[in-house]
Amino acid sequence: MATVIKNVLIVYAHQDSLSFNAALKNAAVKTLESQGYKVTVIDLYAQHFEPRATRSDITGELSDAKKFSYMQEVGTAFKEDRLSHDIKIEMEKLKEADLVIFQFPLYWFSMPAILKGWVDRVFANGFAFNYAKAQIYDTGLMSGKKAMLSLTTGGPETLYTNKGLNGDMNIILWPMQYGILRFVGFDVLKAQVSYAPAMAADTKRKSMLDNWTTRLKDIAKEKPLEFIPIENFDY
Amino acid sequence: MATVIKNVLIVYAHQDSLSFNAALKNAAVKTLESQGYKVTVIDLYAQHFEPRATRSDITGELSDAKKFSYMQEVGTAFKEDRLSHDIKIEMEKLKEADLVIFQFPLYWFSMPAILKGWVDRVFANGFAFNYAKAQIYDTGLMSGKKAMLSLTTGGPETLYTNKGLNGDMNIILWPMQYGILRFVGFDVLKAQVSYAPAMAADTKRKSMLDNWTTRLKDIAKEKPLEFIPIENFDY
Ligand SMILES: Cc1cc2nc3c(=O)[nH]c(=O)nc-3n(C[C@H](O)[C@H](O)[C@H](O)COP(=O)(O)OP(=O)(O)OC[C@H]3O[C@@H](n4cnc5c(N)ncnc54)[C@H](O)[C@@H]3O)c2cc1C
Ligand SMILES: Cc1cc2nc3c(=O)[nH]c(=O)nc-3n(C[C@H](O)[C@H](O)[C@H](O)COP(=O)(O)OP(=O)(O)OC[C@H]3O[C@@H](n4cnc5c(N)ncnc54)[C@H](O)[C@@H]3O)c2cc1C
Ligand SMILES: [Zn+2]
Ligand SMILES: [Zn+2]
Repeated sequence: MATVIKNVLIVYAHQDSLSFNAALKNAAVKTLESQGYKVTVIDLYAQHFEPRATRSDITGELSDAKKFSYMQEVGTAFKEDRLSHDIKIEMEKLKEADLVIFQFPLYWFSMPAILKGWVDRVFANGFAFNYAKAQIYDTGLMSGKKAMLSLTTGGPETLYTNKGLNGDMNIILWPMQYGILRFVGFDVLKAQVSYAPAMAADTKRKSMLDNWTTRLKDIAKEKPLEFIPIENFDY
Repeated sequence: MATVIKNVLIVYAHQDSLSFNAALKNAAVKTLESQGYKVTVIDLYAQHFEPRATRSDITGELSDAKKFSYMQEVGTAFKEDRLSHDIKIEMEKLKEADLVIFQFPLYWFSMPAILKGWVDRVFANGFAFNYAKAQIYDTGLMSGKKAMLSLTTGGPETLYTNKGLNGDMNIILWPMQYGILRFVGFDVLKAQVSYAPAMAADTKRKSMLDNWTTRLKDIAKEKPLEFIPIENFDY
């Protein structure tokens, strides 16, 4: 069954409100709100989000006081409602979202650490997936929701082809689109890649913003990327 | 010319000293020291390393007070020796290293955020690479040094093949091995992947530790991975 999108969550990772990432985020807020969606923005740097996965993420006693396993302790703490307050707040936002947009500049062929830390800590064992109950990929706990990456690069598009210096952008996106978004069950919409805004002429930047706005107007109708269904694998 | 390895730097990202990652790190320290290498360990969680790339990384005035570009400000601050003290300390360790080993558990098909933040902040513009001077990949500023990933997983090896549920491990490693290590000029040694230590029998874990130790004894003789030389690309 197709998700009806009502609430959109934008997880935004840029330091500066005059950046091109900020412009893309602002364009998304404006366009989506004018379409009647409720939009929530998580401004990671502004809220000084904690990226480190540590003992402090669990309040109260550990289930194993001798050896600290982050995955296991978080699983138990989630069940017993003992995760730290800052993680619980982010989980509430995620629960309400029908579509999640990650807006970030590509850092080292991946997400900036502050955003990676949001994933590491918020997509917790028991909340976003449950390996023991086989709730991963198609049956991940975010299934029914949609998600997508919207990223900018320093390098131009020609470098990100299968014959280009940096290699195919699809390979760079794979760990994030499959290993993160699909793993927890999201239907993944095609990534929006805005290449090299800093090198572009102002007209080109305007057209990248327009492309994004135009796409978002019909986002509810988009078909997600296709992945091989989990029942085709032995595991 | 082949690098003579004298100093090894281990960048280690695990919360617990009784973990399998700690055991791999300890085995490396012991083996390498007994071979006569000088070994330095960066224990990221113990030193509560800051992963966020922010304005605080630059001391003194910004070159553009109106719009903050992290890449540009870091480039200027590096030249003028105005990077924050914690980044400069890490850079000193990197400068002395002939071989860098990254020891970490796979988090979401990538590095834990604390380690990603070490890369984001320490592999700074002007220090690790210089895009303007075409000092990237083969001519990156870390060239002459070697680096490698040593990682552990939760999932077993069978899931990480090209027909497995998680897909080929080489694709998962690509952004890190090519986009990070090779980008700054390291000769990249094959990754050491210790699969699913938590699911393994104790004998299997012992043999994974032995494999690592055995490999490290001859690490100086290993040939790096081959990448297409940069002069074969237009960019
Ligand atoms: C640690 C680190 C690692 C990196 N790794 C990579 C990598 O692996 N690969 C890669 O390709 N790049 C990499 N980069 C570069 C990075 O991806 C780019 O710098 C970033 O994506 C550019 O986006 P921005 O929002 O910061 O652009 P900005 O520099 O903020 O903006 C670009 C231009 O757009 C203008 N602009 C802002 N708003 C508007 C508007 N409303 N209308 C028109 N113009 C506007 C700005 O004024 C500016 O001139 C890395 C950078 C860092 C700091
Ligand atoms: C946020 C997050 C994201 C994750 N994402 C992924 C992912 O994308 N893909 C994936 O596959 N996994 C993923 N995992 C799982 C993670 O990669 C594994 O939990 C981790 O790699 C296991 O390594 P460890 O050092 O923590 O093992 P531990 O659990 O510490 O150790 C495993 C076993 O080894 C034993 N041991 C310790 N020292 C020794 C010794 N000297 N000799 C013999 N045995 C010893 C321990 O006692 C324990 O029984 C994720 C985990 C988290 C928390
Ligand atoms: Zn509170
Ligand atoms: Zn100091």
